Amino acid sequence: MKDKIIGVIGGMGPYAGLALVHHIFDQTLAASDQEHLPVVLFSMGDRVPDRSAFLFGKTPENPGRAIAEQIRLAESVGAVVVGIPCNTAHAPPIFQVIQETLARAGSRVRLLHLIDETVRFLREHYPDVRRVGVLSTLATYRLGLYHQALEAAGYEAVMADESVQETIVNRAIFDASYGIKAQSHPVSKIARQSVLTAIEHLRQKNVEAVVLGCTELPLAIPEMELDGLPIIDPSLALARALIRETYPEQLKPL
Amino acid sequence: MKDKIIGVIGGMGPYAGLALVHHIFDQTLAASDQEHLPVVLFSMGDRVPDRSAFLFGKTPENPGRAIAEQIRLAESVGAVVVGIPCNTAHAPPIFQVIQETLARAGSRVRLLHLIDETVRFLREHYPDVRRVGVLSTLATYRLGLYHQALEAAGYEAVMADESVQETIVNRAIFDASYGIKAQSHPVSKIARQSVLTAIEHLRQKNVEAVVLGCTELPLAIPEMELDGLPIIDPSLALARALIRETYPEQLKPL
Repeated sequence: MKDKIIGVIGGMGPYAGLALVHHIFDQTLAASDQEHLPVVLFSMGDRVPDRSAFLFGKTPENPGRAIAEQIRLAESVGAVVVGIPCNTAHAPPIFQVIQETLARAGSRVRLLHLIDETVRFLREHYPDVRRVGVLSTLATYRLGLYHQALEAAGYEAVMADESVQETIVNRAIFDASYGIKAQSHPVSKIARQSVLTAIEHLRQKNVEAVVLGCTELPLAIPEMELDGLPIIDPSLALARALIRETYPEQLKPL
Repeated sequence: MKDKIIGVIGGMGPYAGLALVHHIFDQTLAASDQEHLPVVLFSMGDRVPDRSAFLFGKTPENPGRAIAEQIRLAESVGAVVVGIPCNTAHAPPIFQVIQETLARAGSRVRLLHLIDETVRFLREHYPDVRRVGVLSTLATYRLGLYHQALEAAGYEAVMADESVQETIVNRAIFDASYGIKAQSHPVSKIARQSVLTAIEHLRQKNVEAVVLGCTELPLAIPEMELDGLPIIDPSLALARALIRETYPEQLKPL
C-alpha cells in the first residue's frame, strides 16, 4: 500500500480536475490497478467563488479561503501533496491567501504551483528554448500570470496581439455556439482551427514553444508538438510534478 | 453551497472512476462551475485487493473491507451518497462485506448498487424491452451478475455464447496488443470491431437491448444506440442515480 496520497482540488472547472487526474494515471508506470498511485479529487466548484470576478474587483470574496478549506479536507484523508488545476487560482492575491490560510491552520501539505511547475517542465524538457509564446483566457492574459513567471525565470515571454487574443482565442474558449466551454467532446472544428491560427500567429513571432495557459485549450490541441513546435500543457506538467513528489520511480519517461 | 456531496470510490480500474465522474458532470444541468454538483473521487486501487482473484478463490482477502474503509473516508469529508464503478465489487460475497462493515461502523451513507441501478435505468427508459443481452469480462460472465439481476427483475437475460465471450469479448478487453485495457485512447479498430461483432451476435439472438457489463466496453462503444438497438452503459445509469439521489432537479433529460 502506498502511503503518499495525491490530492487534486478540481471543480474550477470540473473537467480541468478530471483532465489532471487523467494525466496522473497516463503518466504513471503501472501494470495493474494496485500499482496506480492513490489520488483523491475534490470537485466542489459550488463552494469556490469565481476567481476572475474577484481579481477584477467584481466580487469581494477571496476564493483562496474556500480552496484552502478543500485542501484541508484532502489532508484530513491523507493527501500529502496537492495540485490545483486552475490558472487564475495561482494569481498572487488568491494563491497567497491559500498559503496563509493553510499556514494558520497548521497544514503540513505540500502545495505545488501550476505555473511554476510549467516553467520547470519547460526548462527540463526543452532546455534550448528561450522564446515562449503563451495563449490563455483574456483574464489570465491581462493578469500576465505566465508572462511574469516566464520572464522571472529568464525566458522571453511572447503574448498574442491583443486583437488575436480577444477575437480568436477568447472566442474559441467562450463563444456560446462553437467555444470549447460550450462544446468539448468533441471540440468544434472552428474552435480547434481558431487555436491553430493563434499558434501560427505566435510562430510568426519566432517563438520556440507555446504554453496553453488555459485548461480548455488542450482539449482543442492535445498534440505535444505541431510541426516541430513544442506545445506545453500546464496540466501535464503539474501531473508529472505530483508523481515526482510522491513516487518518482513510477514517473513515465516523456 | 450544496451540502449533499457525491462520493465515488474509483480506482478499480482508475479510468472507470474517471468515466463515472465524467458522466456525473455531463448529466448535470449546470451553466457554471458553481452550479455543478460537489463530488469527491477516491482513486486508491493500490489498497483494494483484486476482486476476481478473491471471487475465484485465488486470494483469501475480501476486498470489501478496503472498499468500505474508503467509503468511510468519503463520508468523513461529507459524502452522503456513494457509488462504486466496478462490476465485480457488486458480487454478493464482496458487496455484503461492504454493507456489513459500513453498518458495524455506524455509517449513514447511502450506497447505491451499480447493477440494480442499471436494471432500474432499463425499466425507466426502455419500458418495452424484455430480452436483454449482456457483454462482460469472463469473470462477470461466469459470476452471472447481470444475468441474475435481470432475471430477478423479470427480464430474459441473454448471454453471448461462451466461445464468443472467450475469443472475441474477453480478448477485446484484455489482449496485450489490441485490447481496450492496453490501448484506450483511442481504442484500437480491432477491439471496437470485436465488440461490434459480439453485439451483432446478441442481435441475432433477438435481444432488444445490450448491457455493456464491463467498465472497459463503453470506451469502445460510446454510442447509446446502434441501428436502433439500445446500448446500456451501467456507469451512465449509476451517474444519473447519484444525481437523482442528491439534486434531482439538476438531472439532464435523457
